[in-house]
Amino acid sequence: MRREPESIKEGDQILLFWDQRRQWLLRAERNRQFHTHKGVVNLLDVIGRRYGEKVRSSLGLDFLILRPTTYDFLAHVSRPTQIMYPKDIGFVLLKLGISSGKTVVEAGTGSGAMTIALANAVRPAGHVYSYEIRASFLESAERSLRRAGLEEYVTLKHRDAKDGFDEREVDAVLIDLGDPWTVIPQAWEALCGGAPIASFSPTMNQVEKTVLGLRGKFANIQSYECLLREIRAEEGKTRPATIMVGHTGYLTFANKVYSDEVR
Amino acid sequence: MRREPESIKEGDQILLFWDQRRQWLLRAERNRQFHTHKGVVNLLDVIGRRYGEKVRSSLGLDFLILRPTTYDFLAHVSRPTQIMYPKDIGFVLLKLGISSGKTVVEAGTGSGAMTIALANAVRPAGHVYSYEIRASFLESAERSLRRAGLEEYVTLKHRDAKDGFDEREVDAVLIDLGDPWTVIPQAWEALCGGAPIASFSPTMNQVEKTVLGLRGKFANIQSYECLLREIRAEEGKTRPATIMVGHTGYLTFANKVYSDEVR
Amino acid sequence: MRREPESIKEGDQILLFWDQRRQWLLRAERNRQFHTHKGVVNLLDVIGRRYGEKVRSSLGLDFLILRPTTYDFLAHVSRPTQIMYPKDIGFVLLKLGISSGKTVVEAGTGSGAMTIALANAVRPAGHVYSYEIRASFLESAERSLRRAGLEEYVTLKHRDAKDGFDEREVDAVLIDLGDPWTVIPQAWEALCGGAPIASFSPTMNQVEKTVLGLRGKFANIQSYECLLREIRAEEGKTRPATIMVGHTGYLTFANKVYSDEVR
Amino acid sequence: MRREPESIKEGDQILLFWDQRRQWLLRAERNRQFHTHKGVVNLLDVIGRRYGEKVRSSLGLDFLILRPTTYDFLAHVSRPTQIMYPKDIGFVLLKLGISSGKTVVEAGTGSGAMTIALANAVRPAGHVYSYEIRASFLESAERSLRRAGLEEYVTLKHRDAKDGFDEREVDAVLIDLGDPWTVIPQAWEALCGGAPIASFSPTMNQVEKTVLGLRGKFANIQSYECLLREIRAEEGKTRPATIMVGHTGYLTFANKVYSDEVR
Repeated sequence: MRREPESIKEGDQILLFWDQRRQWLLRAERNRQFHTHKGVVNLLDVIGRRYGEKVRSSLGLDFLILRPTTYDFLAHVSRPTQIMYPKDIGFVLLKLGISSGKTVVEAGTGSGAMTIALANAVRPAGHVYSYEIRASFLESAERSLRRAGLEEYVTLKHRDAKDGFDEREVDAVLIDLGDPWTVIPQAWEALCGGAPIASFSPTMNQVEKTVLGLRGKFANIQSYECLLREIRAEEGKTRPATIMVGHTGYLTFANKVYSDEVR
Repeated sequence: MRREPESIKEGDQILLFWDQRRQWLLRAERNRQFHTHKGVVNLLDVIGRRYGEKVRSSLGLDFLILRPTTYDFLAHVSRPTQIMYPKDIGFVLLKLGISSGKTVVEAGTGSGAMTIALANAVRPAGHVYSYEIRASFLESAERSLRRAGLEEYVTLKHRDAKDGFDEREVDAVLIDLGDPWTVIPQAWEALCGGAPIASFSPTMNQVEKTVLGLRGKFANIQSYECLLREIRAEEGKTRPATIMVGHTGYLTFANKVYSDEVR
Repeated sequence: MRREPESIKEGDQILLFWDQRRQWLLRAERNRQFHTHKGVVNLLDVIGRRYGEKVRSSLGLDFLILRPTTYDFLAHVSRPTQIMYPKDIGFVLLKLGISSGKTVVEAGTGSGAMTIALANAVRPAGHVYSYEIRASFLESAERSLRRAGLEEYVTLKHRDAKDGFDEREVDAVLIDLGDPWTVIPQAWEALCGGAPIASFSPTMNQVEKTVLGLRGKFANIQSYECLLREIRAEEGKTRPATIMVGHTGYLTFANKVYSDEVR
Repeated sequence: MRREPESIKEGDQILLFWDQRRQWLLRAERNRQFHTHKGVVNLLDVIGRRYGEKVRSSLGLDFLILRPTTYDFLAHVSRPTQIMYPKDIGFVLLKLGISSGKTVVEAGTGSGAMTIALANAVRPAGHVYSYEIRASFLESAERSLRRAGLEEYVTLKHRDAKDGFDEREVDAVLIDLGDPWTVIPQAWEALCGGAPIASFSPTMNQVEKTVLGLRGKFANIQSYECLLREIRAEEGKTRPATIMVGHTGYLTFANKVYSDEVR
């Protein structure tokens, strides 16, 4: 399989990259200038380049033009509440078996980072139904989804998940609420038999309540904590980074069953 | 969206579940009996049930019939060398932006666990090209892919990745070899501009060599270690599990660029 | 400072060492034979040797004679309940400022491992008062203290810590009970002003109750979790061990103050 | 055992405490004022109080007067290079069996934090010999030792540990150098038979070289990494702190033996 290199066209998304702390998701636009600490970048200059090439700022400094992936879109959402990190999101997608064509319900849209990841994983044939009661979060999530080009795969619902989900026989449910145990019966109603549920919570107390709430209607209940540590590689000096994120939250998984007396 | 519950048909994959240590991936077959430590399960009895229901063994004990996801298929590969765990695989899929329609090259098929995860993520329109020099691994991976129903999305190549990849302008490359630095130039040739590469290695020494090998032709180089700890939830006694997997390997990521002098 | 090497005399403690999993604390005795999987070691043969030399078993295999430290004595206690590991004990000794001459109260002798560490740290002028309601634990702890030659620095009390401590103006209090919050007022009475208290608990729920119980009478309240991971060093293959102890318990520290309204 | 509460006398060390980030080690002095962000504290006001009481600043705000322990003295050293954290120091003291009366050699005084911990642990009858080639470090360490009142238990030597140690038959050796393997033969000469050595290094590469250097002359070789995570306790919201120190260094331990062919 051999493909020709594509050049960047007007409207394409780019990741303007200085270093790991200074990078921006932008669109290649004919009439836009982007101001950075290292000078102004004329976005017209990006058009016609290949991803992986450089663009020079008004101060003569070179920025890299990288190809944004879903990872970048979800890492760049505005996060008033964002607590699920990519390390958590990747593991959830895998444990829930989210893939192209699946139907997923999300309780708690929040910043929309997880919604982006879900939408990207189920497209083109699948769909995400995401419930959120705070209007401002929905607006922000909608903007993020649009920027990532994923809005058609998501139905955002300004509704309280506690009132139940409209969907039935869905392939997976993800709960990102402060009181996940309050929507477990509703999630059970929405899921198809044997299918997985996941819940994300910052405290072990929430984990405990969630697990107790799952018992009887769900089996294969497991909880985890995922820690990610950066490694700084330098010749002869490679070592873990001094500072790391020590906590985001705990993940709980289970499968819907049709019986009260299950393990 | 409301779907009707489906019942299990002959040939469907099931996860026969006793507990987290004793569970088996099986196919619902009319003439097959499965022998467990808790008696014989007649797989004919599974047909017509819904996922999430139980099936009774010859000893009168109930097993659960769960719906297997990709997670289960990759967790059940035979692993003569398998070292990438789901925690690593989920993060890699996300960082590499693997999704439906993408073209991915894998250097080192190994047990095929990562191959299954990649194939599941790119289907139906994408494709995985996986290189492996050990014939026995290829055979085992092929069986695992077939069981997961993903063989059509993967081309397994009995070839040494060091001799280069046939593909060009691919969306991502994953290296799972003992000496990842030896195939970095070949990976650069195969990737499209700005696209991501990932490498998995058990030792920090390998990380260092890989990072040094990436410099100059790749930017945005990052290395990580991912730790997963199980939480045991019991009313009033919730705590982390006493024993955990303390190490699998380190992950290194970067993006292809077209210049020698990059950050 | 130059000292002469000492040779092992009858009655001296030795650590008979095969490898990290097979090692025994023994006394050099004239008429004792020790049976191992690698043959019989005649303990008479140890007398007159230097620590660091070998002794040969009846099967012609060499064991090392190492010099036991407090670490070995506490690592070899019989542990019906032992949950504080050396990683926790070392940190507690340091945070509590335990050193020669200090007076310490311990609520919950348990296996006596922490008691050994405390006694060793306060000797020769200091003293440890350790409370335990379970007689069998006291007996076992007494044996362990005697073996470590530390019994004179410890007063074991067969008493419920909830009934209060006899001591006043002590330098530090350590609580190793399932319900540490029940003895906090008693600990306050025993401590001198500004002095430190520590508590060890397996669950975060216990940590929370303990911290809430400390508030108002104690300041500088801090809780920690300490994780220890073994590194396996091999030329070119150095990496963390695959399996690690993922949890023992949480440590809480605070200082006694004389006011209700403290930070 | 009942002691009377002591009141603070002129010259006593105090820990003036606002919160965990703002606390100072000071001496109770008649003619000294201490300026803080919360007003001026007249140190005369501290004299006659008990530890655990408050002292009011010129702005009418109350500071706590806590009793400093060794932990506080080593936590407050100026740390131009300080990399050993209390979590590491506590574990090293325990593994090396450091206690009252022991003789210890330290290669690499550095900031003096470990030296303070060693001196406090061996006093009153033991002694620490600490080697350092950088004069400025020695001066700083000497000041820190004097402040902690521990100078009499330490001999600081402005010498290169590579040139060998003057001491023989010492109870333990601690190496805190960038190239610990260069002083292993010298450490062997200084140690008594069977006695423990410890080494602290930031990279796994150093661990590997150190372990290879120990083989043949030392047995019972073990390496570890110690991680400390703070827990934030709030009613119903207890959880690990978001940010943690992800790395300080690795610890390697071994015991001197008298043979080339040891495990």
